[in-house]
Amino acid sequence: MTSLLIRNARIGDDAPADILIRDGKIAEIARDIAADGVPVENADGHIAIAGLVDAHTHLDKSLLGWPWYKNDVGGASLMAMIENERAMKKKLGIDPHVQSMRHALKSVAFGATLIRSHVDIDTEGGLRALEGVMQTAEKLADVVEIETVAFPQSGLMIREGTVELMDQALAMGADLVGGLDPCGVDRDPKGHLDAIFALAEKHGKGIDIHLHERGELGLFSMEMILDRAEALAMKGLVTISHAFCLGMPDYHRTEPMLARLAAMDVRIMTTAPSSSPAPLVKQLDAHGIKLGAGNDGIQDTWGPYGNGDMLERAKIVGQRNNLRMDSEVKRALDVCSGGGAEAMAKPRRALEAGAPGDVVLVEGETVVQAVVSHAPRRLVVKGGHVTARDGKTLVEAP
Amino acid sequence: MTSLLIRNARIGDDAPADILIRDGKIAEIARDIAADGVPVENADGHIAIAGLVDAHTHLDKSLLGWPWYKNDVGGASLMAMIENERAMKKKLGIDPHVQSMRHALKSVAFGATLIRSHVDIDTEGGLRALEGVMQTAEKLADVVEIETVAFPQSGLMIREGTVELMDQALAMGADLVGGLDPCGVDRDPKGHLDAIFALAEKHGKGIDIHLHERGELGLFSMEMILDRAEALAMKGLVTISHAFCLGMPDYHRTEPMLARLAAMDVRIMTTAPSSSPAPLVKQLDAHGIKLGAGNDGIQDTWGPYGNGDMLERAKIVGQRNNLRMDSEVKRALDVCSGGGAEAMAKPRRALEAGAPGDVVLVEGETVVQAVVSHAPRRLVVKGGHVTARDGKTLVEAP
Repeated sequence: MTSLLIRNARIGDDAPADILIRDGKIAEIARDIAADGVPVENADGHIAIAGLVDAHTHLDKSLLGWPWYKNDVGGASLMAMIENERAMKKKLGIDPHVQSMRHALKSVAFGATLIRSHVDIDTEGGLRALEGVMQTAEKLADVVEIETVAFPQSGLMIREGTVELMDQALAMGADLVGGLDPCGVDRDPKGHLDAIFALAEKHGKGIDIHLHERGELGLFSMEMILDRAEALAMKGLVTISHAFCLGMPDYHRTEPMLARLAAMDVRIMTTAPSSSPAPLVKQLDAHGIKLGAGNDGIQDTWGPYGNGDMLERAKIVGQRNNLRMDSEVKRALDVCSGGGAEAMAKPRRALEAGAPGDVVLVEGETVVQAVVSHAPRRLVVKGGHVTARDGKTLVEAP
Repeated sequence: MTSLLIRNARIGDDAPADILIRDGKIAEIARDIAADGVPVENADGHIAIAGLVDAHTHLDKSLLGWPWYKNDVGGASLMAMIENERAMKKKLGIDPHVQSMRHALKSVAFGATLIRSHVDIDTEGGLRALEGVMQTAEKLADVVEIETVAFPQSGLMIREGTVELMDQALAMGADLVGGLDPCGVDRDPKGHLDAIFALAEKHGKGIDIHLHERGELGLFSMEMILDRAEALAMKGLVTISHAFCLGMPDYHRTEPMLARLAAMDVRIMTTAPSSSPAPLVKQLDAHGIKLGAGNDGIQDTWGPYGNGDMLERAKIVGQRNNLRMDSEVKRALDVCSGGGAEAMAKPRRALEAGAPGDVVLVEGETVVQAVVSHAPRRLVVKGGHVTARDGKTLVEAP
């Protein structure tokens, strides 16, 4: 844990001040703090925001650094995309450690200090992807905190041996139990959910389940998730990623579900997608449901989009939610920073004494101007440790 | 009209070649074209794409160059946003000529060669906005083609004197008759539509009407638009911007409407919004309906978003439409280029002999990689005339 004094940073839209980080945490924010031997960075009046948080991504999937991958599969069928990815991984001989290093460091250059990565566990790749990402997490421990979710991307019940691999993955150190569309992919919601909740109970770990299922089907799976969360008293330990079904327009269907999610302190992670229904910030806020955001996979066999920038994701969250007021856009930023950390059950990233020493200096006239233009990052600091300067990480990507 | 030889450009994803522009049009694309006195630009192997087309924007509204505008109004009420804008324009004393110069040149720096701008006509601002934008269009005639739509932003029937101003605007040279939510804003669809179609008939000009009305209300207004287009035999002369109602999920309601739109060759302009239903590329393509895209207003009192980049808009169109295949993303780009020009009834921008000499050189590994990263523009050429280099226009903005 490191100490650092950042001089002359604009604290959000407020007047410039100094930020003193001691032993990895923000100790003080004030004018003209005495340095007394602490290393100093001059912010030159740039805007300081709290460290960015990518609460839903896939570090093992990106093809960053490879020649352009020409996508001929498209988005019509989830199963076709899953099958294609497994085939391509094999064909190309992707190294999950190298790819996760590239992806994580790209995110760090944009200001990420905390990442939750789902990692594929399947009977072809085995635990290789997890080993690679965990190796990255260890190497980058001072640079970015990486949490892993053992994720049965190819299905759990439909591929024999996957539950056992998930069990091994959790024993090996995966932080959370993943899951995927218990109806849509596994065609066995009871089997799927019983299996992942049993793994969570056995290993004493939380759950973060991908739920792309829309409309009534998604609500049905969500009910089955909640039944189990309630029965096992897993308040605050369950996360639902994507949760497209919460974007269905029927208030009488979503409101009781939101109330039930809130009562169990279920957390929601979104990418704020433009081509799907999506959980909405204001609706979740009204229920006090913790919400994080993520970039999801970037530049992989699933699609060509994404660059790892959570400040740009804040813009996307703002646009998806029709957030136009400055105060609203700042909430979109919070979803991609402090709010996302809270949704991950991690200390809230914020510019205040006691918060983690995770600070990003960004160019810009105001915070909102910086968000909507995803302005250049000047400095990224994690726990008082400088990790990137002018868009380049200090650790080089392989 | 100018001549220019662009050497060694990658033609989309194909091998490098030279592009010869003569008298403003592409004369030839081939290897090692003889220069014979024509000025030469070396593309250094960068990717050439056709000139970008912003088919729906508001050049008179942007606050570019002003101190950051703090938005406290939000997006809940269309009328509140309209009233606020009129009040702010008065308070700040915005000069529509200066603002449209700034906005248009920002778009040009990103590769725009053709822009359709709606321009506010109302009883407070009178014809001032139109005068300002027309002055810009004249000054930038060699740099970017600007088409104007006389747009009753504050309503037509609800503000006495607006129809007369629209009449004057069209006599003054506005290229098209605008309109706005005949039900939602004017509360008098018959009055509104009779008025704008009468203006179109009188001046022999086309129509481009903003239609934000969703669901059944939007379909009702669309029917009334089509009734008049059919009665006046205005095939190919009517454009509907936004057309959110076409994004409603009821196939049995939208399909007959799409067939009727196609029969009258009605054109659709979209921003591919993430927070609204929207007309979808594939659905419109299936009906052969011409589709253009636009950035809409950028950084104005309506909201903080937008930067004038139609290559980034192509990415947004791709994401909104779940376009993941390379071939699909290229169609998204076309909507923001050649397809948009066609929807405006202008010559199709394309890299082929006979097309306008509008070419953009962009960094990138492939066309799709350039789109999804909205990669830096190296050179922008309109009609053989270099208008921007390395992201900077040759004409300076005021």
